[in-house]
Amino acid sequence: MKIAVGIDIGGTNTVWGFVSPSGEVIHKDSFPTSSCIKAIDFVDKMTVEIKYALAQNPNYEILGIGIGAPNGNYFKGTIEHPPNLSWKGITPIRDMFQDNFDLPVILTNDANAAALGEMQFGAAKGMKDFVVITLGTGLGSGFVANGSLLYGHDGFAGELGHTIIEPDGRQCGCGRKGCLETYVSASGIVKTAKLLLEQNNVDTSLKKYKEITSKVIAVCASEGDELSLKIFDMTAKKLGLSLANTVVINSPEAIILFGGLAKSGSLILEPTIRYFEEYCLNLFKKKVKILLSEVPEAHAAVLGSAALILKARNFYPFF
Amino acid sequence: MKIAVGIDIGGTNTVWGFVSPSGEVIHKDSFPTSSCIKAIDFVDKMTVEIKYALAQNPNYEILGIGIGAPNGNYFKGTIEHPPNLSWKGITPIRDMFQDNFDLPVILTNDANAAALGEMQFGAAKGMKDFVVITLGTGLGSGFVANGSLLYGHDGFAGELGHTIIEPDGRQCGCGRKGCLETYVSASGIVKTAKLLLEQNNVDTSLKKYKEITSKVIAVCASEGDELSLKIFDMTAKKLGLSLANTVVINSPEAIILFGGLAKSGSLILEPTIRYFEEYCLNLFKKKVKILLSEVPEAHAAVLGSAALILKARNFYPFF
Repeated sequence: MKIAVGIDIGGTNTVWGFVSPSGEVIHKDSFPTSSCIKAIDFVDKMTVEIKYALAQNPNYEILGIGIGAPNGNYFKGTIEHPPNLSWKGITPIRDMFQDNFDLPVILTNDANAAALGEMQFGAAKGMKDFVVITLGTGLGSGFVANGSLLYGHDGFAGELGHTIIEPDGRQCGCGRKGCLETYVSASGIVKTAKLLLEQNNVDTSLKKYKEITSKVIAVCASEGDELSLKIFDMTAKKLGLSLANTVVINSPEAIILFGGLAKSGSLILEPTIRYFEEYCLNLFKKKVKILLSEVPEAHAAVLGSAALILKARNFYPFF
Repeated sequence: MKIAVGIDIGGTNTVWGFVSPSGEVIHKDSFPTSSCIKAIDFVDKMTVEIKYALAQNPNYEILGIGIGAPNGNYFKGTIEHPPNLSWKGITPIRDMFQDNFDLPVILTNDANAAALGEMQFGAAKGMKDFVVITLGTGLGSGFVANGSLLYGHDGFAGELGHTIIEPDGRQCGCGRKGCLETYVSASGIVKTAKLLLEQNNVDTSLKKYKEITSKVIAVCASEGDELSLKIFDMTAKKLGLSLANTVVINSPEAIILFGGLAKSGSLILEPTIRYFEEYCLNLFKKKVKILLSEVPEAHAAVLGSAALILKARNFYPFF
């Protein structure tokens, strides 16, 4: 049976698995990324894990290894200066895997992998022009144009989270100020909540919680807490405007929201659509669908990374 | 001799001509677009003009007709609701030409045509990922990704001039407020000048002129007038930030400035580069070239439109 290996390297956990060409996850495992202090430890560990799982399933034939990683560069196969990993500098992770496996290895950033997953197995099936926005700790994005991922000249295209929306705004991890992801992400919405809690002497159920997280805000909002609903509204307003400013550039069929904050469902979707349409240029009004991810959540990371191989195989059947 | 016809439909003038595959303009003419009240008058006039010129040069063989037009839709071959033409609604201009000529006819918006012109004959030769910004009465843009123009799902991609940079800012012709082109364009820079002239009781050589135009501001700035230099600086700051916010999406090799305001040369280029680098995400700093157009100015419109045919011919040699 032919399979693709999907590896999603996250700041917290690495999730990996075997995926059939039809999108069935037939083996899945995970471990804390930080357990591998050096990148070479990581590659060695993954090599053993893959070969061990393969030895137990000798009828599996690996087509290739797809890797989604923060700050992953598709052209060079490198991970470059990832803010949330202990591997500093530039790591040639693709070449390191290819030293151990005589197979195609494709690496890209995690949001691009999510976009491919959505195209192969989720809400973007059959679409040729769409954007996936990953709302996790930060805000990532993957742009598909004319059926292909947009990598740009040097392989780093799709960093929508780092558009500056407030020139003297919140400090961003990138060193600049006012980036979209400092407002619209799990960490951004918590910052907004903390600012409002400081400024307003209002009655809010948020005060019941010791630690404010995006989940806490979502729970309170879903219970009708006004301040929490306002926080979602403020977040959606910034996202809606940014999306309206994005569609004039690439004219997508749909924008798909993916990841932790997107799981808040209509709490984020409904006001985002409302503000998007309010800010939208006439040429695009009511034309761009804003959808929630349809990739099964538990398998999204593995499916997206494996899609790098499965999608490539559609174009290069000699794989 | 094989040639392409290039037609650039402008709000003021229509410029058209015959172009050889190597980029030589071998015939060129123009007339006021407003002389054709209806689109059918325009198509009839152009048909006569082309056939007359052809009759005088019987050795010319037309490969196809390329048309650049405001609000031109590549997929549908239509001009849709152009704000500066008297042809209201949706005009199927491609089909109208094809009724008169048994030839390939390709239409796109004027900024996309400018991008193709730059790729075939100008500053973007050999590039696969770049952006052309046309700084005329408005601000247009053409995005090339992986060697192809970005049209998006419905053929209207590349409207960077309509990103909202000030949510409650200047009124835009599109009906919304605060679009980039209300600040960064020939008309935008004049608005900035008028506002500063109202607000500041400063000594400026701008006051010598009855009518403030972008050319007047450029002349005064080049003579060292402080207010005029400040106006260019304010304009470049907004453009630099917008370009920094754009490159994170598509990671281009270069951004090429084209059109009236770009002719101000270093007055606009130098501060734009400075602000762009200041606002730029680390991943892209010092990596993206900001250049002035290198398409010969007198022929730019015709070359860009003709490039629609000549570029397509590279891919479809049966043309």
